[in-house]
Amino acid sequence: MGKIHNFSAGPSILPDTVFQEASSALVDFNGLGLSLLEVSHRSSGFVDVMDSAVSLVKELLEVPKGYSVVFLQGGASMQFAMVAMNLLREEGSCGYINSGTWASKAIKEAKMIGDAKIIASSEDANFNYIPKGYTVPTDLDYLHFTSNNTIFGTQFSSFPTCQVPLVADMSSDIFSRKINVEDFGLIYAGAQKNMGPAGTTIAIVKDELLGRSGRNIPTMLDYQTHIDKGSMFNTPPVFSIYVSMLTLKWLKNKGGIGVIEKENIDKANLLYGEVDRNPLFVGTAVKEDRSLMNATFVLNDESLKDEFDKAIVEADINGLKGHRSVGGYRASMYNAMPIESVGACRCIMSNFASKYGN
Amino acid sequence: MGKIHNFSAGPSILPDTVFQEASSALVDFNGLGLSLLEVSHRSSGFVDVMDSAVSLVKELLEVPKGYSVVFLQGGASMQFAMVAMNLLREEGSCGYINSGTWASKAIKEAKMIGDAKIIASSEDANFNYIPKGYTVPTDLDYLHFTSNNTIFGTQFSSFPTCQVPLVADMSSDIFSRKINVEDFGLIYAGAQKNMGPAGTTIAIVKDELLGRSGRNIPTMLDYQTHIDKGSMFNTPPVFSIYVSMLTLKWLKNKGGIGVIEKENIDKANLLYGEVDRNPLFVGTAVKEDRSLMNATFVLNDESLKDEFDKAIVEADINGLKGHRSVGGYRASMYNAMPIESVGACRCIMSNFASKYGN
Repeated sequence: MGKIHNFSAGPSILPDTVFQEASSALVDFNGLGLSLLEVSHRSSGFVDVMDSAVSLVKELLEVPKGYSVVFLQGGASMQFAMVAMNLLREEGSCGYINSGTWASKAIKEAKMIGDAKIIASSEDANFNYIPKGYTVPTDLDYLHFTSNNTIFGTQFSSFPTCQVPLVADMSSDIFSRKINVEDFGLIYAGAQKNMGPAGTTIAIVKDELLGRSGRNIPTMLDYQTHIDKGSMFNTPPVFSIYVSMLTLKWLKNKGGIGVIEKENIDKANLLYGEVDRNPLFVGTAVKEDRSLMNATFVLNDESLKDEFDKAIVEADINGLKGHRSVGGYRASMYNAMPIESVGACRCIMSNFASKYGN
Repeated sequence: MGKIHNFSAGPSILPDTVFQEASSALVDFNGLGLSLLEVSHRSSGFVDVMDSAVSLVKELLEVPKGYSVVFLQGGASMQFAMVAMNLLREEGSCGYINSGTWASKAIKEAKMIGDAKIIASSEDANFNYIPKGYTVPTDLDYLHFTSNNTIFGTQFSSFPTCQVPLVADMSSDIFSRKINVEDFGLIYAGAQKNMGPAGTTIAIVKDELLGRSGRNIPTMLDYQTHIDKGSMFNTPPVFSIYVSMLTLKWLKNKGGIGVIEKENIDKANLLYGEVDRNPLFVGTAVKEDRSLMNATFVLNDESLKDEFDKAIVEADINGLKGHRSVGGYRASMYNAMPIESVGACRCIMSNFASKYGN
């Protein structure tokens, strides 16, 4: 079987070398004669893995002093509640930009915990753009936004500017482009796009924001617990952290965020170039807000769907089906995707136009 | 390198065949040409894995109608708060048996949420026995206990009888012996002993107990969320669930809980037989409450420690060091541990007595 081109939105492609290394570690970790899965998380071998993973996050994102990096469980969905529990004061209020499904879920959880206001929304156009031109009240405990909207294929190309701490769900674009961590109060991201396999979530927390909420927070949901214990308060998700460490090491060896950002721009240009050129397809997101990670597009003529779906399968392309909220197609082009796979997708679109374009 | 005898308390030994199968799936899952880690959790391949994992739990434990099985994240430590959030009514109270470190942590979390009473405790003797002879108030929302105390080497050989729903943390002995699920309101267990790698936790919940607490529960912490969505409300910890499924299949193929229980008794008898016979060692738990999973023992003469530790290393024995709360040694003998490894441990203890016993 040839190479599959994997456009899955998440869990998603990771580097081949990472799969190989992880596969070996399941049989023999560090030459110990034991599987990675059967060693204590307190053993020096795994403590080194955790230390490396945290250091790589700090190095790649140039995390400044005054911020902590923790590896958590539960996915970004658990963070929706945790953020509000930790940062929203009992009598305070917080703001949200509603740019899609995940932002809406974050808002729902925050509302359960306290006063969460929607500051701006693009729900009026099925979230096909990033809200702009809003005013952020200066008395909010924080402003939350979702930097990349996997489902709708939109992305904040620049981040909100405001006087309150910024909280960002970067699950689907962290490590894909340069960011200035200092501009944020808290960044969180589920691993399963650019960082590693499902099962762990990182949080980058500005330390001074913690301990102010006045709330009674369950121990496992208090960021301070995990900061104080170096992400080892309880048994961490060993395997997911190990594979994240391998993936971050791969990214570092590749040259870091600057290099991958350039590649990601090239891949996106290749794909969107075809979408815009091709008479059979149209992009669903407004151009200026298009995501570099997830390109969403639909057929102008739905009657060609079966034929195009056949072409996808024949080209060994996986995971190109769009989310049901948008329909059509979604090409997720995360860090580990080679430009050749984007080329393969472009090729079938182009061939399809040659065949059916007139 | 020869076979390592892995007595680690958790994460801990799993079957060799499981490590091999998991290792292969990281490179090619189900012959798809894709790694297990890069396929969508909504793909038919992984949906089958999840279905099998849930079915195997139900089959092996003979889970009756009226109970749901879910795979969660966050470890048993997250359950300490979740149990109380879901089952403790706003104006109600709940009871706990304090049999060790993990029970104490569960109590701390429940107290943050509502009225949690300690019904019995063995703290007076450094938790070296299982509390008995207590009375359980009939108006509790539930009674919580820890079926096996990994750190102190004690285990409930029979379960509390009472008129209120029983909640058990079975993290370190689930799937090791027959239980009657019908006797319980809720059972939970972190995977990383007898079920799989760290990163997932199962809960077996009596459906009728849910929805009564009157509390506003964050979506991710509400058992009903995960029941309604078949453990797929958000991206589940794919890999940990996959390996759990493989381990449960291994157990089923071996003959199920009846067969493994007999093996576990044989292994424990072999080890404790040596502890009791050997003049150099003494067990730390009272005999009638000894754990079949974790045997704790200390040297009578601490000055022999360095010599015995050397013998451990020379025999390729890993993870025998006791927890700091008890000191000495702890032999964790989970399902996947072959009796030969217990024999190897017995052998060095016996040889050590021949050398230093007089």
